[in-house]
Amino acid sequence: MGKGRLEAFSDGVIAIIITIMVLEIRIPEDGAGIDALGRVWPIIASYLVSFVFVGIYWNNHHHLLHAAQKVSAGIMWANLHLLFWLSLIPVVTGWVGHHPEAAWPTSLYGVVLLCSAIAYVILQGRIIASHGGDRSLLAHALGADWKGKLSPLLYAAGIGIAFVQPQVSQLLYVTVAAIWLIPDRRIERELVGEGEATGS
Amino acid sequence: MGKGRLEAFSDGVIAIIITIMVLEIRIPEDGAGIDALGRVWPIIASYLVSFVFVGIYWNNHHHLLHAAQKVSAGIMWANLHLLFWLSLIPVVTGWVGHHPEAAWPTSLYGVVLLCSAIAYVILQGRIIASHGGDRSLLAHALGADWKGKLSPLLYAAGIGIAFVQPQVSQLLYVTVAAIWLIPDRRIERELVGEGEATGS
Amino acid sequence: MGKGRLEAFSDGVIAIIITIMVLEIRIPEDGAGIDALGRVWPIIASYLVSFVFVGIYWNNHHHLLHAAQKVSAGIMWANLHLLFWLSLIPVVTGWVGHHPEAAWPTSLYGVVLLCSAIAYVILQGRIIASHGGDRSLLAHALGADWKGKLSPLLYAAGIGIAFVQPQVSQLLYVTVAAIWLIPDRRIERELVGEGEATGS
Amino acid sequence: MGKGRLEAFSDGVIAIIITIMVLEIRIPEDGAGIDALGRVWPIIASYLVSFVFVGIYWNNHHHLLHAAQKVSAGIMWANLHLLFWLSLIPVVTGWVGHHPEAAWPTSLYGVVLLCSAIAYVILQGRIIASHGGDRSLLAHALGADWKGKLSPLLYAAGIGIAFVQPQVSQLLYVTVAAIWLIPDRRIERELVGEGEATGS
Repeated sequence: MGKGRLEAFSDGVIAIIITIMVLEIRIPEDGAGIDALGRVWPIIASYLVSFVFVGIYWNNHHHLLHAAQKVSAGIMWANLHLLFWLSLIPVVTGWVGHHPEAAWPTSLYGVVLLCSAIAYVILQGRIIASHGGDRSLLAHALGADWKGKLSPLLYAAGIGIAFVQPQVSQLLYVTVAAIWLIPDRRIERELVGEGEATGS
Repeated sequence: MGKGRLEAFSDGVIAIIITIMVLEIRIPEDGAGIDALGRVWPIIASYLVSFVFVGIYWNNHHHLLHAAQKVSAGIMWANLHLLFWLSLIPVVTGWVGHHPEAAWPTSLYGVVLLCSAIAYVILQGRIIASHGGDRSLLAHALGADWKGKLSPLLYAAGIGIAFVQPQVSQLLYVTVAAIWLIPDRRIERELVGEGEATGS
Repeated sequence: MGKGRLEAFSDGVIAIIITIMVLEIRIPEDGAGIDALGRVWPIIASYLVSFVFVGIYWNNHHHLLHAAQKVSAGIMWANLHLLFWLSLIPVVTGWVGHHPEAAWPTSLYGVVLLCSAIAYVILQGRIIASHGGDRSLLAHALGADWKGKLSPLLYAAGIGIAFVQPQVSQLLYVTVAAIWLIPDRRIERELVGEGEATGS
Repeated sequence: MGKGRLEAFSDGVIAIIITIMVLEIRIPEDGAGIDALGRVWPIIASYLVSFVFVGIYWNNHHHLLHAAQKVSAGIMWANLHLLFWLSLIPVVTGWVGHHPEAAWPTSLYGVVLLCSAIAYVILQGRIIASHGGDRSLLAHALGADWKGKLSPLLYAAGIGIAFVQPQVSQLLYVTVAAIWLIPDRRIERELVGEGEATGS
C-alpha cells in the first residue's frame, strides 16, 4: 500500500477537522455590536486552543509517517482510529465553548484529547513494530519521549479536576499545547545525525 | 486520464464525507450536563458505525484503484456513482441517530449501504472489464469474494427487518462492519504471491 | 507556476462543493416516517442533478487541464472565476430544492449554470491563447464543440421559461446533464490519434 | 520536512475556507421570490470579496512556497498561524454580510485581514531567514513590495473609519482586493530573469 495516499487522506481529514471547527463560531445574527462578539469570545478561545492541538497532531503525524517506510493494514486502521478521535475535537470544542464554566464539557474535552493521545501511541507502536521493533530508527528517536508521557497525565488530571474547577483543567490543556508548540526536533535531529554519521 | 487525479479526487470526497458527518453531532447548547451528552449518544453511536463503513470503503477503494492500471471514462463515472451513494451516508446517519427506534430511518440506512455496495461492484466490474475480463489479476484475486457477496444479503435483510425490529437491523449492519474490519488481504496476498512467483 | 498545485487546489474545491451540497438535505428531526422523507424528496432530486453537473465540470476540467502545458496568472484567475460560480451551485440547489415550483429559484439555478459555462469557456480560451491560439492541439480537438455551444442556449431558455413553467426549465437542465454524461472523448481521441499518427 | 506535504495541507485548508464561506449564504426557506434573494444580497457581495481575498492569498502563498527550498519547523508554525487567521475570514464575512451597515462587523473584518497580512509577512520573513537573509532570491524579488506595504495601511484605515462610515471601509477593502487582483509577477519575473541571465 502506498504511503503517499495514506498521508494525503490523513492530510485531507485533518485539514477538514481544523477548518470546520470554525463553523462553531456563529456570531449571533441579531447582534451587530461588540457585545455580540463578547458572547462568542469563549468559543473563539476554545477554537484557538483546538486549532493548536490539531496543528500539533498534523505536525507530529507528519514526522511519524515520514519515518515510516511501509504501510500495513494495521497501520492504516490505527491511523483511521486516530482520525476518529481527532474528528471529535470540533464537537467537544463547540460544547466547551458554549459552557466554559461547566464541568462535563471541560472534562469531556480532556477525554477526547486523552483518547487521541492513546490512538497516537497505538499508531506509533504499530509503525515501530512493522519496522523491526525498538531497534528501529523511530523507536530510538522517541527514546526519551517525555512530552508523550507527560501529556496523558495532564489530560487525565484535567478530566478529574474539571469537576472541581474547570478553569484549572483548561489551564492544564493549554499547558500541554504550549509544551508541544516547541517543535519536536527529536526525529529530525536523529535523521540528520544518522545522515551525518554516514556522511550522506 | 491519469489515475492519480481520480484517486486524489476520491480521497478528497471521502475525507469530506467521513468528516462532515461529525457536524450531525450537535450537543444541545442549553445543556451542560451529562444528560445533554446522553441525548446525543445514539448520534455518536451511528457516527462511529458510519465512520467505520466509510473507512472500509476508503480502504477497499484504495486497493481496487491500486490494482487498476488505466482509467477510462466509464470507470470515472462508475467512481462518481459510488461517491454519490457514499455522500448520502451522512444524511441517513443523522436520521437514524435522531430516531434510532424508528423503522424508516434504519431501513433507509440499509438502502444507502446496499446501493453503495452495488455501486462498488459496478466500479469493480468496470475495472475488471477494462483489464481483460476475468482473466486479469484483479478478477482472480476477487475469485472467492464471500465478504462482497454476504454484505448485500445482510443489508437487504436489514432493510426488511427494520420494519419489525430496527435493533436487529442495526445489529446486522454492525456485523457487516465487523466482517470488513478484518482487513482485505486478498489483493495484497495475490500481488505478493505473483511477485514471489516471478522472483521479484 | 506548477500545474499540479492548480489541479490539486481545483480538485479540493470541487470535492468540497460536490460534498457540502449534501448538507442541504436535512431530514426533519421531528419526522421518523416515510412522509418526512417525502418532504425532502425535491431536495434529494436537485442534489442528484447538481451532483451530476459538478461531476461533469470536474471531468471536463480534468481533460482541459490535462491538455494545458503551462499555467499563467491569467489561467489561474480564470480558474478561480470558474470555481466561484461552481461554489454557488450548492446555494441555488438548496433554494430550488425547497421551492421546486417557484419561478425565481429555478431561473437562478440556470443563471449559475450559465455563468459557470461562460467561466469555463473563458478558462478554455485562456488556455488556448497561451498555447499558440487556434493552431494548438486543444483548439483543434474542440473544433466541433456542439455540446459547449448548445448548453448555454438551453440554460438561457431555462432561465426565461422558469417564469412560465419551472418544470420545463428543470427538464432542460436535466437534458443538458444527460448530454454531457455521454463522456467527452474528443480530446482523448485527438490525443490518441496524434499519438498514432506520429507512431508514439 | 517535505515541502510538498506542507503545500498540500495548506491547499486543503484554503480550499475548505474558500468553499465553506458559501454555507453562510442561506436563502430564507420561506421565500421563493426575488425579495428573498434581495435580503441575502449583502451576504453574496461579502462572499465575493472574501473569495477574492482568499484567492489572492492562495496565489501569493503558492508563489512564496515555490520560492522556498526547505521547510523548517518555524516555517510550518508560521504557516499554521497564517491559516488560523484565514480560517476566521468566513466568520467575519458572515457577520459583515448580515450587518453591512454596522460599525463593529466591518471593523472586525479589517482586523482579520490585517492579522492575515501580518501573518503572511511573518511567514515571508521566516522563509527569507531560512534562505540566507536578504541576499536570497526571494528577498531581492520582494524588494519593492509596495502592495504588501500599502495593504496593511488601508486595512488599518478601514478598521478605524468603520466607526464613522462603514461603507468607506468596505470600499477600502475592495480597493485592496483590486490592487492584488493584478497578479504579482515580481517573483515570476525575477525567476525568469535569473534564468535568462544564466542562460538556462
